[in-house]
Amino acid sequence: MLDIKSLNNKQIFLVESPKDKLKEENFELKISKIPNLKNEEILIETRYISIDAANRAWMQGRTYRDQVLPGDVMGGYGLGKVIASNNNNFNIGDYVEGDLGWQNYSIKNSKDIIRTNITEDENLHMSVLGITGKTAYFGLQLAELKEGETVLISAAAGAVGNVAGQIAKLKGCRVVGITGSQDKANWLIDELGFDAVVNYKNENFYKEIRNACPNKVDVYFDNVGGTIFETVLFAMNNYGRIICCGAVSQYDQAAPQSGPRGVPGIIVTKRLTLKGFIVMDFDNQKEKAEEELKQWIKNEKIIVAEDIIEGIENTPLGLIGLLNGENKGKRLIKI
Amino acid sequence: MLDIKSLNNKQIFLVESPKDKLKEENFELKISKIPNLKNEEILIETRYISIDAANRAWMQGRTYRDQVLPGDVMGGYGLGKVIASNNNNFNIGDYVEGDLGWQNYSIKNSKDIIRTNITEDENLHMSVLGITGKTAYFGLQLAELKEGETVLISAAAGAVGNVAGQIAKLKGCRVVGITGSQDKANWLIDELGFDAVVNYKNENFYKEIRNACPNKVDVYFDNVGGTIFETVLFAMNNYGRIICCGAVSQYDQAAPQSGPRGVPGIIVTKRLTLKGFIVMDFDNQKEKAEEELKQWIKNEKIIVAEDIIEGIENTPLGLIGLLNGENKGKRLIKI
Repeated sequence: MLDIKSLNNKQIFLVESPKDKLKEENFELKISKIPNLKNEEILIETRYISIDAANRAWMQGRTYRDQVLPGDVMGGYGLGKVIASNNNNFNIGDYVEGDLGWQNYSIKNSKDIIRTNITEDENLHMSVLGITGKTAYFGLQLAELKEGETVLISAAAGAVGNVAGQIAKLKGCRVVGITGSQDKANWLIDELGFDAVVNYKNENFYKEIRNACPNKVDVYFDNVGGTIFETVLFAMNNYGRIICCGAVSQYDQAAPQSGPRGVPGIIVTKRLTLKGFIVMDFDNQKEKAEEELKQWIKNEKIIVAEDIIEGIENTPLGLIGLLNGENKGKRLIKI
Repeated sequence: MLDIKSLNNKQIFLVESPKDKLKEENFELKISKIPNLKNEEILIETRYISIDAANRAWMQGRTYRDQVLPGDVMGGYGLGKVIASNNNNFNIGDYVEGDLGWQNYSIKNSKDIIRTNITEDENLHMSVLGITGKTAYFGLQLAELKEGETVLISAAAGAVGNVAGQIAKLKGCRVVGITGSQDKANWLIDELGFDAVVNYKNENFYKEIRNACPNKVDVYFDNVGGTIFETVLFAMNNYGRIICCGAVSQYDQAAPQSGPRGVPGIIVTKRLTLKGFIVMDFDNQKEKAEEELKQWIKNEKIIVAEDIIEGIENTPLGLIGLLNGENKGKRLIKI
């Protein structure tokens, strides 16, 4: 029988809201004991923490969730296992996911978490079968891709971008990635089958987009916002669609800067449609998505790209590195 | 029989691309004779010239049409009558519309113009039954209005805005206008039936939007872009729609400025949809729109607001004044 009193909970707190780029000193690790469970409460042991650029946005203000403030345990989506339960709906051994935070153990109510049906390796349920893969899946669903169209994807080597690119290839599109290094560009083309990749750090970025997209861009899957978004606007085809998935270029600073020149002027003249979305809004379709993604993985139509770091102590550096573009594929912290 | 040689064509040329705000000196009026008609050509006498904020955007660069350059007769949408024809498809007396330019007479091919079926007063076909009214009509069609929603409209006293507001009222929405003077605000509420109007020049513009839209904004019909667009973004409801119809705030200067802060971040977190459109793309539905608009006018469901100036000499000042917000409703030049 588990002795809750014996557990040491390593918790990483935000101690200061970052003024510009996120630093390790913005966080502090403390070790605490687990309080007694109240009625309806569940004790969860974290297995994986998802590292997402959005984590940084949570420090800037309210988004689709409350701001993470100094003194809070840092928020973070996680996969965990129930190890004690005062709630009839959750049994010991159940897998759950939700905002478990940057800590080994968390106490939650049923409203804070959802049950996860684990059929594959745990990590897969946090990458291609998890929020990441489903974000790519539902984002492209909004784009209503047609065979032969040109799909351009920013942060293409990132968790969502690489899956979006692979799915768009399956749909018969020309897929072009935007990334920040030759190493990642090679990986996207050689391993994942992208048709072309452009480096946003190159001086002739716009020209390179036009070279890589001779028929211009029909669908832009945007994960970054900022100047990349602005440049792509000018390469869009009439009646193009822009899927707004994230704005990572705007997260690692005090507050978002001015938006892209050409908004809304080019939206009008090119008759563009922009669609923002949050994957949670598609919960009623998630089984179908998971099933299709599972089949694609099984049939080797999609390559699973994960970047797993061990140890909760490494979570802050894991996020800082991700914001600096060091990961290929989905970054996870394994506890 | 008309003696073409006797006609004097007053033509207004753009002599210099405006560097910032448009001035009368950017134009020059010259009088010329009409050349002989070639095969397939039609000679058109202009009846009305439409004054549109977009005219100013044409001087900035290529939009949905070529840039108007120094030395060109200024472009302008117009309604005219065929007075001579070398084209079997057009007879003397036919009404036509298209980019007739700022001049009394123009020579066109059939590809440059379309025939207009005039059933009401000529001016009505250039206002509510013309491009202006149809822009409001099709823009709101894209918004997929639901009864009871809050619709916010910028440049609400302008040609498109006032019609959009009246149609949204017919659809059972709460309609709030944005304008720049108390006089126009009163007119929108007292004469056209808007539920509320906010003045974008007020210091507490955001707060006033929130007061006028207690349930926040479901649909924003944007004619202006710029800082008004940016402010409204923060007042949008989740799943709101923004109809991008124009960006008049960005036209009367050398080049568009930075875009709205919060693009694309807020588009993501609020799951917004932005749709740009050009009325010409809806030509296959225009009969239906014209019929419905005609009925609304006949049944006094829509009040026709026109601001008609006489004399081609007044066209430059007509546009300059419109860019400074002096018109209520559709501004036309009557020749």
